[in-house]
Amino acid sequence: MLDYNALALQMHEEKKGKISVVSKLKIQNKDDLSTAYTPGVAEPCRKIHENKENVYKYTSKGNLVAVVSDGTAVLGLGDIGPEAAMPVMEGKAILFKEFADVDAFPICLDTKDVDEIVKTVKYLAPTFGGINLEDISAPRCFEIERRLKEELNIPVFHDDQHGTAIVVLAGIINSVKLVKKNIEDVKIVINGAGSAGISICKLLLLYGAKNIVLCDKQGSLVEGAEWMNPVQAEIATKTNKLMESGLLNHIIKGKDIFIGVSGPNVLNSEMVSTMNKDSIIFAMANPTPEIMPEEAKKGGARVIATGRSDFANQINNVLVFPGIFRGALDSKATDITEEMKLAAAKAISEIISDEELNEDYIIPGAFDKRVSPAVAKEVAQIAIKTKISRI
Amino acid sequence: MLDYNALALQMHEEKKGKISVVSKLKIQNKDDLSTAYTPGVAEPCRKIHENKENVYKYTSKGNLVAVVSDGTAVLGLGDIGPEAAMPVMEGKAILFKEFADVDAFPICLDTKDVDEIVKTVKYLAPTFGGINLEDISAPRCFEIERRLKEELNIPVFHDDQHGTAIVVLAGIINSVKLVKKNIEDVKIVINGAGSAGISICKLLLLYGAKNIVLCDKQGSLVEGAEWMNPVQAEIATKTNKLMESGLLNHIIKGKDIFIGVSGPNVLNSEMVSTMNKDSIIFAMANPTPEIMPEEAKKGGARVIATGRSDFANQINNVLVFPGIFRGALDSKATDITEEMKLAAAKAISEIISDEELNEDYIIPGAFDKRVSPAVAKEVAQIAIKTKISRI
Repeated sequence: MLDYNALALQMHEEKKGKISVVSKLKIQNKDDLSTAYTPGVAEPCRKIHENKENVYKYTSKGNLVAVVSDGTAVLGLGDIGPEAAMPVMEGKAILFKEFADVDAFPICLDTKDVDEIVKTVKYLAPTFGGINLEDISAPRCFEIERRLKEELNIPVFHDDQHGTAIVVLAGIINSVKLVKKNIEDVKIVINGAGSAGISICKLLLLYGAKNIVLCDKQGSLVEGAEWMNPVQAEIATKTNKLMESGLLNHIIKGKDIFIGVSGPNVLNSEMVSTMNKDSIIFAMANPTPEIMPEEAKKGGARVIATGRSDFANQINNVLVFPGIFRGALDSKATDITEEMKLAAAKAISEIISDEELNEDYIIPGAFDKRVSPAVAKEVAQIAIKTKISRI
Repeated sequence: MLDYNALALQMHEEKKGKISVVSKLKIQNKDDLSTAYTPGVAEPCRKIHENKENVYKYTSKGNLVAVVSDGTAVLGLGDIGPEAAMPVMEGKAILFKEFADVDAFPICLDTKDVDEIVKTVKYLAPTFGGINLEDISAPRCFEIERRLKEELNIPVFHDDQHGTAIVVLAGIINSVKLVKKNIEDVKIVINGAGSAGISICKLLLLYGAKNIVLCDKQGSLVEGAEWMNPVQAEIATKTNKLMESGLLNHIIKGKDIFIGVSGPNVLNSEMVSTMNKDSIIFAMANPTPEIMPEEAKKGGARVIATGRSDFANQINNVLVFPGIFRGALDSKATDITEEMKLAAAKAISEIISDEELNEDYIIPGAFDKRVSPAVAKEVAQIAIKTKISRI
């Protein structure tokens, strides 16, 4: 394997960052200047002043997404601050461009205060057609997203939560199909009850899963347990109907699906062997998964997915966020709703035909060029159908 | 003359805005993704976390300028709001790119509150290497700029004030040279005591002008006059030493230079004829100047400049802001100081040799490709010499 750390350092220094803001037109003479700038530019200004919605007609707003972070939960590095978050947000911005022709711009904020972040993003909203929240620590990220969704009339999407949830659901849809089980019947354990785990849980419930137990370091989330934060307490009321209590090694017994958004090596082959036949393992801790695929197979797992590109079945958000924003922007959606998320997950899963579907191919590859357009199309259609579109 | 309004409307709609955010590199395979994004991207993040200054080494920050407006004083249109300001801010952004390869991004803020604007720009600062304030109404713009300059360690520059002042000074330097007068001796009237007029006045004083009277609709600014706002009251203490009072038609008598940043047709040839021999007229109201060049000539003016591209001697900020930010960014300057502004004005004036200098050529054309690099070079040198540079 290449030394990506060394390569990344060298590349980032050589290029001095990864984004550039360019003009869509040439400014080579007085006529160009008078059309793109004064005096001509006053005319689109007037039209927008007459009717604010014209901002979508005459400016870049409709294709601009802010990638907003406060740098508090960057990758596995934690609270490293807004400056140190820049390489990730720039990375996200160029993936938006490469995968869906969305013009995304990093906004790394020098405040961790929830009220201030909400206010700042609201102040920035005239410029942008959508807001992608990124690497903001839980539980602050929940409140920030909830308030912004309520108060803004442009799509707001916390990718760490929903991007992950959507791509996991896409993979689960195909995995369950492969092993010939039903989503209503499968018993699922989600290990890691942070923002990603809870978001995955909510989307699985919405899709029809009935039996989910969430686990964290302290053990399973059971209604009434005192150690839980408010968001965990709420999700506990909708999961674990049998009130199973205990640590992961106990909870995992008799489950069909393990979904890990936790840490390295929390699962071993023995634990997997206590699961039901044809077990499905999504071990997404990065860079070291909850269990290595080899180990999981020893325990009898039939489908194994990780976050890594060097194993089969990579669960990668890049399958989601470019397409879902493309669809939301194309339909001038005012929100990204649960129905749009479900549509995105289904669109991703349907890229793989029944004939192609197998243990090592339950999710399209990150570079599958069919994915973003398919996601965008379905998402835009749902936005229009459910009347949250400006069109 | 072309119908720029119609052309502009058509072009803005066809292109759907003028800016695009692009990637400096290709993302075509797993290695590209692992270098630009996870897992490799963690390494530059760590380096910046270790030392915040590394953000200049590994990210786009060092070449990114925010073009910040609240939409309160857009062109001659006034307070049209942040959405309607977008076409102007995008226009500014593409001029930054075309003229000095600066990556500039429009930030149109949905608040007019001075405190909130200051706070928001401070929160945004980790992303940007510089802040260009634009089309913010006076006197709010003064406080916003002052506070941001104090509180941020990146350059902050209100182009409507200082860009205009610098290019006017460049033109005045050459005009005075042409008519063989001295800056210390010339009598100057500035009509329009708003942000641009006051900023022009300050820079002329700094350059060595001794006799300046500012005029507004109510008449000349005289120390103690009660109608003045605090900023006008302050500048009145540094100008109009002879306490000349009255309206422009009185004040202009015996002056060498008229500088107008006011409104259309406030000057006529009779008034010009009361000025000293070899009078210099900078009539910069847009699109209709304070006096048409033809009229000014009838009154005996020798040098006439306007803001328009269809007359000789166009006073255009595009000669300033791209180069001054280029120089500030290249030198990693923490501020744009008065010395840097003077250096910029001199650099622009020196583009024209003594042999070339004539009544119709006292300022380089907007598309003169020598200007921005010359300004950048001088500005960067002054930044380094005066130790406000990070280098």
